[in-house]
Amino acid sequence: MAKVLMKGNEALGEAAIRAGCVHFFGYPITPQTEVPEYLVKRLPEVGGAFVQAESEVAAINMVFGAAGVGMKCMTSSSSPGISLMAEGMSYIAACELPCVVVNIMRAGPGLGGILPSQSDYLQATKGHGHGDYRLIVLAPASVQEAVDLMTLAFDLAERYRNPVMVCADGMIGQMMEPVEFPGEGRGEPFKDNTWALTGRRGRTRRIVNSLFLSPDALFQHNIKLKQKYDEIERREQRWELYTADEPYDLLLVAFGTMARICKTAIDDLRQEGRRVALFRPITINPYPFAACRNAMDAMGESGRVLTVEMNMGQMIWDVNHAAEGSREVEFYGTAGGIVPSPDAVANRIREMVAEPQLTTNNP
Amino acid sequence: MAKVLMKGNEALGEAAIRAGCVHFFGYPITPQTEVPEYLVKRLPEVGGAFVQAESEVAAINMVFGAAGVGMKCMTSSSSPGISLMAEGMSYIAACELPCVVVNIMRAGPGLGGILPSQSDYLQATKGHGHGDYRLIVLAPASVQEAVDLMTLAFDLAERYRNPVMVCADGMIGQMMEPVEFPGEGRGEPFKDNTWALTGRRGRTRRIVNSLFLSPDALFQHNIKLKQKYDEIERREQRWELYTADEPYDLLLVAFGTMARICKTAIDDLRQEGRRVALFRPITINPYPFAACRNAMDAMGESGRVLTVEMNMGQMIWDVNHAAEGSREVEFYGTAGGIVPSPDAVANRIREMVAEPQLTTNNP
Amino acid sequence: MAKVLMKGNEALGEAAIRAGCVHFFGYPITPQTEVPEYLVKRLPEVGGAFVQAESEVAAINMVFGAAGVGMKCMTSSSSPGISLMAEGMSYIAACELPCVVVNIMRAGPGLGGILPSQSDYLQATKGHGHGDYRLIVLAPASVQEAVDLMTLAFDLAERYRNPVMVCADGMIGQMMEPVEFPGEGRGEPFKDNTWALTGRRGRTRRIVNSLFLSPDALFQHNIKLKQKYDEIERREQRWELYTADEPYDLLLVAFGTMARICKTAIDDLRQEGRRVALFRPITINPYPFAACRNAMDAMGESGRVLTVEMNMGQMIWDVNHAAEGSREVEFYGTAGGIVPSPDAVANRIREMVAEPQLTTNNP
Amino acid sequence: MAKVLMKGNEALGEAAIRAGCVHFFGYPITPQTEVPEYLVKRLPEVGGAFVQAESEVAAINMVFGAAGVGMKCMTSSSSPGISLMAEGMSYIAACELPCVVVNIMRAGPGLGGILPSQSDYLQATKGHGHGDYRLIVLAPASVQEAVDLMTLAFDLAERYRNPVMVCADGMIGQMMEPVEFPGEGRGEPFKDNTWALTGRRGRTRRIVNSLFLSPDALFQHNIKLKQKYDEIERREQRWELYTADEPYDLLLVAFGTMARICKTAIDDLRQEGRRVALFRPITINPYPFAACRNAMDAMGESGRVLTVEMNMGQMIWDVNHAAEGSREVEFYGTAGGIVPSPDAVANRIREMVAEPQLTTNNP
Repeated sequence: MAKVLMKGNEALGEAAIRAGCVHFFGYPITPQTEVPEYLVKRLPEVGGAFVQAESEVAAINMVFGAAGVGMKCMTSSSSPGISLMAEGMSYIAACELPCVVVNIMRAGPGLGGILPSQSDYLQATKGHGHGDYRLIVLAPASVQEAVDLMTLAFDLAERYRNPVMVCADGMIGQMMEPVEFPGEGRGEPFKDNTWALTGRRGRTRRIVNSLFLSPDALFQHNIKLKQKYDEIERREQRWELYTADEPYDLLLVAFGTMARICKTAIDDLRQEGRRVALFRPITINPYPFAACRNAMDAMGESGRVLTVEMNMGQMIWDVNHAAEGSREVEFYGTAGGIVPSPDAVANRIREMVAEPQLTTNNP
Repeated sequence: MAKVLMKGNEALGEAAIRAGCVHFFGYPITPQTEVPEYLVKRLPEVGGAFVQAESEVAAINMVFGAAGVGMKCMTSSSSPGISLMAEGMSYIAACELPCVVVNIMRAGPGLGGILPSQSDYLQATKGHGHGDYRLIVLAPASVQEAVDLMTLAFDLAERYRNPVMVCADGMIGQMMEPVEFPGEGRGEPFKDNTWALTGRRGRTRRIVNSLFLSPDALFQHNIKLKQKYDEIERREQRWELYTADEPYDLLLVAFGTMARICKTAIDDLRQEGRRVALFRPITINPYPFAACRNAMDAMGESGRVLTVEMNMGQMIWDVNHAAEGSREVEFYGTAGGIVPSPDAVANRIREMVAEPQLTTNNP
Repeated sequence: MAKVLMKGNEALGEAAIRAGCVHFFGYPITPQTEVPEYLVKRLPEVGGAFVQAESEVAAINMVFGAAGVGMKCMTSSSSPGISLMAEGMSYIAACELPCVVVNIMRAGPGLGGILPSQSDYLQATKGHGHGDYRLIVLAPASVQEAVDLMTLAFDLAERYRNPVMVCADGMIGQMMEPVEFPGEGRGEPFKDNTWALTGRRGRTRRIVNSLFLSPDALFQHNIKLKQKYDEIERREQRWELYTADEPYDLLLVAFGTMARICKTAIDDLRQEGRRVALFRPITINPYPFAACRNAMDAMGESGRVLTVEMNMGQMIWDVNHAAEGSREVEFYGTAGGIVPSPDAVANRIREMVAEPQLTTNNP
Repeated sequence: MAKVLMKGNEALGEAAIRAGCVHFFGYPITPQTEVPEYLVKRLPEVGGAFVQAESEVAAINMVFGAAGVGMKCMTSSSSPGISLMAEGMSYIAACELPCVVVNIMRAGPGLGGILPSQSDYLQATKGHGHGDYRLIVLAPASVQEAVDLMTLAFDLAERYRNPVMVCADGMIGQMMEPVEFPGEGRGEPFKDNTWALTGRRGRTRRIVNSLFLSPDALFQHNIKLKQKYDEIERREQRWELYTADEPYDLLLVAFGTMARICKTAIDDLRQEGRRVALFRPITINPYPFAACRNAMDAMGESGRVLTVEMNMGQMIWDVNHAAEGSREVEFYGTAGGIVPSPDAVANRIREMVAEPQLTTNNP
């Protein structure tokens, strides 16, 4: 298929359709509104339904219901709306149902602003809902990658029967780029839906449930989930290295839009002869800890690590976890919707090289 | 004041009254229902109001409103209900308002069960709501400590104008112990409420707001919040060491109910001549990383660290962060509402000593 | 098309499909649950969507939205759920949008019971929502008539762009009868949707709105609505007379299930030589006042009128209005879900004839 | 007590306090917002609570809860908000609990406008919620009367354990007049609360319930309610006659603000020698049918009746019911928030006298 020029949010919508998504439930919020706007037109064309719910709480519970009956479905929101989905996400994960949730992050906390941000990293990867459950979280750095990860998101949701979050920001959502879509994928059903509540016609009864009043049964359920999350951790780590095949003594770690900006900064810095490389996690949960550590170890002992984020210091948790104290992890962050230019990042690095140690952020 | 025998949940309620709390907003959920049940009787006696809201979403927004007008107020819930408060918590933190939230954790994910658990640790300490905000999270290990930390919770909420969570479990909530309450504290107002919307009578207009459409203004707001969280991190770390003044080569790390069980296990193990000590964080956010590391370093290089939790491995994140790769952190956990006996913990430790390395849980 | 044996609620669902309905929004409540149960299976077959909303408030607002974009849509509920739709109904009528609402009445007030009743007559015909608006209300007395009136309901909704209520009871909803359905009518669009918000593509902007801050504009809007309701009143009155072509000196007035029971009672009474006839309004709003009065006037001055209802006296308001004091209107009613047998009605009439004047209920 | 100058909405609030009201639950809506604004300040002074609920649905259910435990409580709203309370009102009436609901009517339907109206008359007096229940509805025509009827409302609510509505309009709510308040009445409890759920301490268990699964039990409950409503109808009719002790051959019938305007018009018309009088129902439910009929009959056969309302013709139903066909009832109405001046009303009457028959509105 030829490339088409599309806005990120719309491309996410089209990618969902190609992945076989038939139902969308959501509530409007800037800067993700083009996702539902696109799907409200497209879903009826594939025999699906678009529902604007009463609230984000209602929306995630509609996803819960539709997933429970074996429908490929999704929701989309932005930071405050995602917070309202915390309970529902935990229920869906507990019931082992597949679905995709898009978070086009905006600056917070509270209402915050409507400009791009990466300040929901810890929520997406560590906490959010209650109980021992984990999300798979994918962080695209371009519109094309948003499309590709959307496809992957539905695949992983199906394979592991778990919610998958595509965590982008207003920059990805709003920018236009040429994209290529895979396949046709109109309303493609799940390959296996032996778990779905499709109506008991002669077959054994199926139950979708997260309530286990017996502690032993709930313990077993938790162990089963843990084994699944361990398998996900082993098998599904994805990352990218940039200019790491050339020697480097400064490793940037960044994800999503911030990583893309870092690449441009690196191009400039490399031209100046500065030895800089980038480690970019594509799955921010499970985090590619080993790969990140390897990228650090590839530098000499004097090599430095700089985490660059559009927040006050969140992924640095995971970078520190990867470093295991082997070296100090430095931090450069922005917030409030400010997206640093490649020049700003490059300048920060030039300053940094002149200093013995820049900023240490112990979050 | 003499000691009185009280159930943990009721003691939490009385402690709130003594701390000057006048309003409670909530929605029933097991196993925390005695907190509202107690307060519905007590609050009118101090001129306060108890409101059962339409949902947890409504409840946290009522807390938002009451805090905004300078009322000492709180809510209480259990895991799924706490998830529903994610958005509101982020708003309250963003607006820098003081309030106290009690989470009597039950086993999850989803509906899970109604028995005790510690499986909301990561939610409470890392994620929950969106945007760059942090909670102060206190984890009591006895009914008396629940009372003391409740008092502290209102103090810290007032001092830092930030939500403070008291994170206990059904065990603490349901057990009866003799407790002593501080002071009288009936409806005691905030010492400083120059931020509260009390009605503009001649004075300058005050605004409670989390919306900043200017990215620069929002960035400044984020920096201000970050400085506050850094100050909290410097000043408010609390922890306990147990039998750490005697030599040890096995350090248990546990919080809340689990820590209490560990103490009894340690008493038995010490009698057998085993050199075991406990590090118990009381503030689980900010986490006392340095103190935890010191407790590890006090052992020789061969000393082992075992994190014990009633979940599938959550605080181990922070213990690993403290260890910084200096040693492997081992894990013993339960889930589903199963509370291990001191004997079970002691036995696990006896087995462990017989093995070179027990369980490594890299969450 | 051949007749098929169907339960009333399911027949209502199929009739909606035949009338071209494509979307259903609702929330479960006994005794109407078979309507949504049937439609959840059928609507996808005609390219439509079934949505279980968060509540009846959400459901009627989804109907509002779908009607606004020109979709043939409906909701269904039972008494308490219908009450929750009062605000939404007023909005839809104010915005002049077509939709169909089914009320399978159960006994009230409050939760009441789940058995059949006619106790929402006044709500359906007089009040319910706020402001000067009127519903068209159709009251079927058999499953076949329920089907026919469902078709009519969509026709009238479209013609007058106003909500139309089909007001039946649990008896009609639950009984099985052979029915014949008209046409094919799959997803048939509105003949005229020049009012619908279909997206402005070159054409003039359309507005769906009920807010008029100018009193003159709102007055004009009210006059326009009034003229429409007057036209409905002139053109859409429907009723049935039973054994009124033979002489009678007792006129029963009843609607819906109660009218059907009265017919059987009349058959028995006629066989005894008693001169009894029935007036049955089919449109209970607009009420066929003139026809009702004519049916009274056809009796001599000594002729008596008995209103029979499954409530404490509601339609008697309209029968009195028709009588205009020309004669006393007597009343026989039941409540609580009790459906009187034809024998019970016949016996009451036998007693009545023996008395000069039975019961006068001035509601 | 001396008279004080107060706005109607605030006077309603103060009157509630004097009647012993301790709790208010509501949600803001123009033009009644001064009622909650006043009470948010006053209620804490009498040990009561003011709660802004999540919605009007939540508010009426909080009233339900507070009434159930024997608290004197109220809510207040305006037309669309009152519609949202339909279900809750039916529940409260079904459970026989006392409460007061204020409706400061605005123009409808739908959002309509924010100016005064009487277009919820039929909703208040005939329909609103589901099931066989009735409200007592009081319609003040001045600020002082609003105060007096507020006191009466709490009395009647208590005496009959039924919701009582005070149905005024934005005119009454917004105008300022000197008023005198009765007594002190601070938080005065119910004289009899042997029905309230105050906690079973040694006494017999009490149940507040509207669910009766046995049709016989529900029938008995309906009969009990009906007897209560019949008693209310016999005992609680209130009305006023104006210049009816002088001969008249034109009887105006109007309620609330419209009646007050009619009085001024009558003063002018009487000075011209025109023989006009006014019948004003104060209880619009139960409607004083007999008194209204007497006021008609006091005229000769040629006497005419003109109903004047700020709606499209609603109370005319009841005036026709009173007339029982004895004479044609004519109608003069406005809508949309337009409040006719006394001159406009007087002119209409002058025109009318010149015509054999003006307007007949058969609603």
